[in-house]
Amino acid sequence: MSLYQSSVPTFERSLAAFLGVLDKAEAHAEARKFDATNYLALRLSPDMWPLTRQIQAFCDHAKNASFRLAGAQAPVLADQETTFAQLRARIQTTLDYLKTVDAEAVDAAADRDIIIPFGPTRKMKMQGANYLLHFALPNFYFHLTTAYDILRSAGVEIGKRDFLGAVPGISPA
Amino acid sequence: MSLYQSSVPTFERSLAAFLGVLDKAEAHAEARKFDATNYLALRLSPDMWPLTRQIQAFCDHAKNASFRLAGAQAPVLADQETTFAQLRARIQTTLDYLKTVDAEAVDAAADRDIIIPFGPTRKMKMQGANYLLHFALPNFYFHLTTAYDILRSAGVEIGKRDFLGAVPGISPA
Repeated sequence: MSLYQSSVPTFERSLAAFLGVLDKAEAHAEARKFDATNYLALRLSPDMWPLTRQIQAFCDHAKNASFRLAGAQAPVLADQETTFAQLRARIQTTLDYLKTVDAEAVDAAADRDIIIPFGPTRKMKMQGANYLLHFALPNFYFHLTTAYDILRSAGVEIGKRDFLGAVPGISPA
Repeated sequence: MSLYQSSVPTFERSLAAFLGVLDKAEAHAEARKFDATNYLALRLSPDMWPLTRQIQAFCDHAKNASFRLAGAQAPVLADQETTFAQLRARIQTTLDYLKTVDAEAVDAAADRDIIIPFGPTRKMKMQGANYLLHFALPNFYFHLTTAYDILRSAGVEIGKRDFLGAVPGISPA
């Protein structure tokens, strides 16, 4: 097990899977003859983030975690998506950035302190392995699952396999 | 990074955190003077699992993944909880089982094939590292987040910190 193996491929599998989830959401809207853009403002509760912000958040957790672990400055993306096409591009751009992450630099980060913003003014630190396992991954999956739950609860015909995406190395036993 | 480090402590942190989420749900019900049991049948959609089943599911993903990685037979728990107290006990029992998992046996599983049931009749296999990263962890976080989302969308005053729980080794930078 390496830190790279435990991080970037997880983000890549999940992000690619969510492009498939968006396909099904658009197909569902088309079949029902409504504008798929209507999904983007949906929230599970009035004081929770809407779908658009959930997608931006899981993209940023994937990008920022990978770059921080590599000891690199993560590129900043403006949160200005208002269409499915733009959200797909956000996910694709994130996937493109992940391809540039130096695997060896990530693997060297297990014991290195990672600095993260914590609220508007504070900063916190923790070692790379703890950061990935107990902060970056749970935050990533939190927003990914909530985005899925918003679409699922809105009637899009998706299931666990759409969420998981292409599980590597799985075969009939 | 070891397979044990990447699995059992993640499940332990998250399960302990969810006990705190249940505390806040019960406190909210008490303040509003309704029976907290009412939460247990809530679903995000009529064809999604209710809270009780989501909790049983994330407990089982934690237990089954840890035991499978260790090459051991996971104890089977009946899905018969109908109260908050019983669901707390399910989580606590899962935590107790995780304490018995042999760390060295888990660490030896990275390249070993793990066999999992896949639907009612099929079985699938994949290597231990792939199983943890691309099947067990996403499934665990999927049900954990959905359980959180059910309570959060029902008005319980919980936030990301309640979801994350006690992040190890974090300190002011």
